Amino acid sequence: MTNFSSRGSLLLGFAKLRFHPLFEALVVTIIIFSALIAGFKTFPFTSQYQEIFNTLDYVITAIFLFELLIRLLSEKRAKDFFKNGWNIFDTVIVIISLVPINNADLVVVGRMLRIFRIMRVISFIPELRILVEALFQVIPKMMYILVLLFIFFYIYGTVGATFFGDINPDLWGNVALSMLTLFRIMTLEGWTEVMYETMDVYYSSWFYYVSFIIITAFAFLNLLIGVIVSVIDQETKLDDKIKNAHAQREEDLLKSIQSLEERLEKFYRD
Amino acid sequence: MTNFSSRGSLLLGFAKLRFHPLFEALVVTIIIFSALIAGFKTFPFTSQYQEIFNTLDYVITAIFLFELLIRLLSEKRAKDFFKNGWNIFDTVIVIISLVPINNADLVVVGRMLRIFRIMRVISFIPELRILVEALFQVIPKMMYILVLLFIFFYIYGTVGATFFGDINPDLWGNVALSMLTLFRIMTLEGWTEVMYETMDVYYSSWFYYVSFIIITAFAFLNLLIGVIVSVIDQETKLDDKIKNAHAQREEDLLKSIQSLEERLEKFYRD
Amino acid sequence: MTNFSSRGSLLLGFAKLRFHPLFEALVVTIIIFSALIAGFKTFPFTSQYQEIFNTLDYVITAIFLFELLIRLLSEKRAKDFFKNGWNIFDTVIVIISLVPINNADLVVVGRMLRIFRIMRVISFIPELRILVEALFQVIPKMMYILVLLFIFFYIYGTVGATFFGDINPDLWGNVALSMLTLFRIMTLEGWTEVMYETMDVYYSSWFYYVSFIIITAFAFLNLLIGVIVSVIDQETKLDDKIKNAHAQREEDLLKSIQSLEERLEKFYRD
Amino acid sequence: MTNFSSRGSLLLGFAKLRFHPLFEALVVTIIIFSALIAGFKTFPFTSQYQEIFNTLDYVITAIFLFELLIRLLSEKRAKDFFKNGWNIFDTVIVIISLVPINNADLVVVGRMLRIFRIMRVISFIPELRILVEALFQVIPKMMYILVLLFIFFYIYGTVGATFFGDINPDLWGNVALSMLTLFRIMTLEGWTEVMYETMDVYYSSWFYYVSFIIITAFAFLNLLIGVIVSVIDQETKLDDKIKNAHAQREEDLLKSIQSLEERLEKFYRD
Repeated sequence: MTNFSSRGSLLLGFAKLRFHPLFEALVVTIIIFSALIAGFKTFPFTSQYQEIFNTLDYVITAIFLFELLIRLLSEKRAKDFFKNGWNIFDTVIVIISLVPINNADLVVVGRMLRIFRIMRVISFIPELRILVEALFQVIPKMMYILVLLFIFFYIYGTVGATFFGDINPDLWGNVALSMLTLFRIMTLEGWTEVMYETMDVYYSSWFYYVSFIIITAFAFLNLLIGVIVSVIDQETKLDDKIKNAHAQREEDLLKSIQSLEERLEKFYRD
Repeated sequence: MTNFSSRGSLLLGFAKLRFHPLFEALVVTIIIFSALIAGFKTFPFTSQYQEIFNTLDYVITAIFLFELLIRLLSEKRAKDFFKNGWNIFDTVIVIISLVPINNADLVVVGRMLRIFRIMRVISFIPELRILVEALFQVIPKMMYILVLLFIFFYIYGTVGATFFGDINPDLWGNVALSMLTLFRIMTLEGWTEVMYETMDVYYSSWFYYVSFIIITAFAFLNLLIGVIVSVIDQETKLDDKIKNAHAQREEDLLKSIQSLEERLEKFYRD
Repeated sequence: MTNFSSRGSLLLGFAKLRFHPLFEALVVTIIIFSALIAGFKTFPFTSQYQEIFNTLDYVITAIFLFELLIRLLSEKRAKDFFKNGWNIFDTVIVIISLVPINNADLVVVGRMLRIFRIMRVISFIPELRILVEALFQVIPKMMYILVLLFIFFYIYGTVGATFFGDINPDLWGNVALSMLTLFRIMTLEGWTEVMYETMDVYYSSWFYYVSFIIITAFAFLNLLIGVIVSVIDQETKLDDKIKNAHAQREEDLLKSIQSLEERLEKFYRD
Repeated sequence: MTNFSSRGSLLLGFAKLRFHPLFEALVVTIIIFSALIAGFKTFPFTSQYQEIFNTLDYVITAIFLFELLIRLLSEKRAKDFFKNGWNIFDTVIVIISLVPINNADLVVVGRMLRIFRIMRVISFIPELRILVEALFQVIPKMMYILVLLFIFFYIYGTVGATFFGDINPDLWGNVALSMLTLFRIMTLEGWTEVMYETMDVYYSSWFYYVSFIIITAFAFLNLLIGVIVSVIDQETKLDDKIKNAHAQREEDLLKSIQSLEERLEKFYRD
């Protein structure tokens, strides 16, 4: 009994510490600094601070792991935990941080993976979390127009590869290269150079470029509108959501802790 | 009588197979693969699979032809069939696929035409169909602003050809070349190069370019807004449309089959 | 009395002819062909048709002059006629067409002025007329943001001319050249070239460019929104306007003719 | 008592003069001319008018200083004065104008600071004032999406510096340079050159560029929408605000003068 209360309280104490606003602010600060260092490593003068931040890296990973475990344990079924996209997101980032990279060849990759840790800030700050959720809700609305756009890219790409393949193999050598070139033309970057080159052989090829630019601009315009329309509906609700988010989150955490406390009590009692 | 029921049932059986969801999914898959192959032919390594897909091409064309005939026969008057834009669209694609191309010179053209078959996916998938219909409904709204834009292009093109024709004949040689150059300037691609060249002769020609860019940007902006306004009205109805579309389509097909069945019955009875 | 009726009827007959739909269609066609010829003169092969269209030019100018006089006479006070922007627009185009250009040096200018005659199509077609009116109604809403934008251009232009004037006098020689260069940077055309050149001398000048691009993009974004908001209100009424426009115009013309008829009758009676 | 009325009336007379519409128009004109001269100094021919405008500069500075003092004195507590952003803005501009610059090295800086005086026009004209307030109200709405955008820039910048640093140190030498290069790529300026250079070493680096462009375009699109949504609400109220602004301002000024008058009366009575 004493054993339970001491051990349970200890865990509960940790959990309460973890969800304390000041502690959260500290963790966000450390994440950002850790990410900054990953970026600053590209400057030569930062090598001396590396040791300190390597240590902080381990501390943050430990904190994240501990937090994840608490949240996982507080769910009634472990399966429910992975129904939430953010939980999967957090888990993946923690697992990536845990992978030990000693192999010299993979050090660069390891450093890269560490950089993605900065995205953990998104799941930490409720406003960013809601914003990202809103952005993802827009994507399905854009799906069909992207499918149409892809069909046009593909048709134009094949036509381009067939006719212009011999003129400039670097740009039109095959359908994949053609689609990259068409993406470039869609961004209007130096598209006239590409056009003048093929107009020397096929004079009327200007129609290929002009029609492509007009169609993609029109598609993009509709993409824009589709998104505007769908967002106008949801964004009006976004403000209320942000206001509720902090309150909601605190409540959820308290519930988690309570649930965890009950489970621990039950576990030790049995 | 037996003859009818056996032949009628056979045709009806084919029709039911044709509109079966699984069969539709299969056809869409084949169309896409067929189109992919047309694109992949631009890579050298795909030549060995060509035979398989040439055969599949014939099968798809047969399926399309059969489907078209059913839909055509199910109409009370053949004239009504061609009042629907999608029916014309499907017919054109099937006819193009039927044209035999043996002439070596036209093989490239034949390959090109085959690529357009991928657009048949659009009339197959109801969501894409509705989206394309929505896109086309936007065009009339844009017509008048496009007429205005064309008038400006034409006026600026003539002015450009008259004054700059001797400076750079490749860009300003005649009104058609000038309009292509103006399209380039509208996309802002390397417009300063073009300007600096003519500023050496006519110093104040910067006004020509700056005013053109501002006017076309303003016209484009209004184009955008015109479209947004007209789309906001209809897109709110789009979601309901998509929801109803599957149900509606199934219903239509059942009606087609029923109508066809009745006509067959009548035909054999007489 | 006989004199009046014959002369009055003649004028009335002309007026009725002038506003006949078929006659209007013919005039629009001639205007467009005349403009096309002005453009096609930039090709060498059109010189033979020039005589025919020079003659048609005089005929159109006569028709326009006659139309203007009818409309002017049908107003109770000549002053009221020039309160309408379109009447001024039409008058200016007719006067420009009437100016005889025999001087060889001015032939090019004359040809240019003729090209602007194509804009007469705008006041002929009610839909284009309403659209242009709608475009002009948007401009006052944009005025203040354009003033702000100009202030920013001016401040950045002076700073640019002061610091970068010695680095590249062609781009930054004085405040006017600087503002042209800034317009170029706003269109994002080759702005990095300009930046890398000044970064060699003042390393932190990247801030000048990046801040300018962000501010102008932000201003443009707000320009766009301001216009969208103001247009959404009026465009909803635009459809009704276009529907009413044809009817309204016919009514107005009938009124003009009636008023003219009464005046003529009164004039001859007195 | 006589002393008070004479001195009080004098100050009141000055104040009434200051807020007279004609006087305001005069000051705006002088500010604009003074700014124009600052810009025109970049042309050689303006040096002769410099003396006149240097004198006008002092006069304007005196007027601004006097106006500021009146407005400061009319507040019940000096602290309240600096709660309004526009008061701080005006004070900073006046203080900058007061700083005497005799040092030859700082003459250029002094001239630069003078140019910013043109921004005083914004706080003088109520319409511009309201517009700027509206622009600033939009910024908080954009904050979170800018944070997200920065995180993406930072991640891509670090990846770019790590992999491409050796290929082209001028573009990818460290994370700061990489982010500047990424800003360039976001503006689509010559991004293909940058890509083709790195594709020679890492062939699949096209994915880095294409994904970056798509993500930033998507973020920008959402930035745009977020702003549109928030602006549509407030802009509808903007028209009324502008209408009320002139009336409101006059009322405020009358109150200021009244409050000042009372304070002066009280001061002299005691």
